Amino acid sequence: MMPRMILFSKMHALGNDYIIVDESRAECISEDEKPDFVSEVCQRRFSIGADGVIFIEPPKGEGDIRFRVFNGDGSEAEMCGNGIRCFAKFVYENAIIRKEKLKVETLAGLKIVDLNIDRGSVTSARVDMGFATFKTAEIPMKTVKDEFIEEHLEVDGQDIKLTAVNVGNPHAIIFVDDLKSVDLEGLGPLIENHPVFPERINVHFVEILNPSEVKMVTWERGVGPTLACGTGATATVIAGNRIGKLDKEVLVHLPGGELKIQTYKMDNRIGAYMEGEATLVFDGILSW
Amino acid sequence: MMPRMILFSKMHALGNDYIIVDESRAECISEDEKPDFVSEVCQRRFSIGADGVIFIEPPKGEGDIRFRVFNGDGSEAEMCGNGIRCFAKFVYENAIIRKEKLKVETLAGLKIVDLNIDRGSVTSARVDMGFATFKTAEIPMKTVKDEFIEEHLEVDGQDIKLTAVNVGNPHAIIFVDDLKSVDLEGLGPLIENHPVFPERINVHFVEILNPSEVKMVTWERGVGPTLACGTGATATVIAGNRIGKLDKEVLVHLPGGELKIQTYKMDNRIGAYMEGEATLVFDGILSW
Repeated sequence: MMPRMILFSKMHALGNDYIIVDESRAECISEDEKPDFVSEVCQRRFSIGADGVIFIEPPKGEGDIRFRVFNGDGSEAEMCGNGIRCFAKFVYENAIIRKEKLKVETLAGLKIVDLNIDRGSVTSARVDMGFATFKTAEIPMKTVKDEFIEEHLEVDGQDIKLTAVNVGNPHAIIFVDDLKSVDLEGLGPLIENHPVFPERINVHFVEILNPSEVKMVTWERGVGPTLACGTGATATVIAGNRIGKLDKEVLVHLPGGELKIQTYKMDNRIGAYMEGEATLVFDGILSW
Repeated sequence: MMPRMILFSKMHALGNDYIIVDESRAECISEDEKPDFVSEVCQRRFSIGADGVIFIEPPKGEGDIRFRVFNGDGSEAEMCGNGIRCFAKFVYENAIIRKEKLKVETLAGLKIVDLNIDRGSVTSARVDMGFATFKTAEIPMKTVKDEFIEEHLEVDGQDIKLTAVNVGNPHAIIFVDDLKSVDLEGLGPLIENHPVFPERINVHFVEILNPSEVKMVTWERGVGPTLACGTGATATVIAGNRIGKLDKEVLVHLPGGELKIQTYKMDNRIGAYMEGEATLVFDGILSW
């Protein structure tokens, strides 16, 4: 078969990098080919190299546009906070949909993305991350306590005070006085795999600079240290809000960049918006 | 200043990946800007991502074309066997110079690159790597011996038999029965930094499959394990030739792919040609 010329863009959000393929007008990689295509082009050094591939598709339901995101191994993911900001910037700036409030269809349901526009460019995008739960049955966590908020856990002989919260995936938040003294590589895997967390957990160490600004580092479940974890930043601010240490709106400094998390309350539950940048790196043509 | 649109191509040879910028007709990145440009665009995740940048420049002397190669940190390198194959393929296929024997100006002098062409495409390129030396003073190596060929060295209590050879940079070749039993991460740094090598050394473990085929892994000086080391493959075959274990022409299997090394002799010295593939991955446009 003759190779096809595939147009793509490379974007990143806080160092999470994606290949964007626009299929809003026509499919260029068939459904059957997608897993192979993705696992090939995501290879660093030998191909384009990325964390994943985002396909822009026409809507099937009540949304303006449809978001598909695949991991580098070729598997499809439900949603991705960093990926959907790249997607939204691309969709607006390439005039696929010219709306500042974008209704995006994802495998995790309809998501509303609000765009900040400056002279035709998207400077940041805000995504509603939904509500969090502190119920230990929903973390999940093996404990007699109904919630695990600033409770003590023994980890390899050390006493660690943590808060467990689920925002679609599970997070353990540990507030510390000084991030520099944290042994992320040592404690991260021990907490991730602690028997009290049957589905393991994402681990975040957080230093509060002031009630509206924190600095954090992440040990991601199954991955290790990562540059940026959008759900982790959201979980952190919701946890800090719940224990009264953080304001409603907080600027989060992650190793890969910054996110602004804005919490809201309804019927005793806490939810949050996540806002951050996305960057176009280059446009490319691949023969495949 | 308005951003410039910079056309580039991304290529790799055995997983060594380069951004190619064609300045054969006009300079697009000024000499002063090159180090900053290179260190920015080579960043993985946040920019294009590569091991280095290759600039194609008009000749200054008797060559057909000029090769410049920069490392990811923005420093300029003298030569690079994997990089020059990518360069030669690009130069031919884009009709910058349409010759099958290319005289390439490099900081390490004029290099002749022979291209294998199939229906207008470069399928492989061969570079003359020049002569090797076994003289310990030129490795350099602290020893009373004039050469160090299949001699014993004590490394952390173990007895290691190795051959030292310099092909522009220093290499220690260790022939083993089974590559799978080699502790590359353990022995590599110990040999690299052994006091007998005052300028440290590149370390290669080599399994001879038959006199014309070897498999090797590399611990690169200052880097660690690498996918492919062109000078190391050259040094390996020249060393194997010298001790009578390898033929004149040898296929070398490296973790990133294959190289064919062809040795030649003159006045008691051994030199070699290195032949291998190069691959165009994609063409891109960057706003910088």
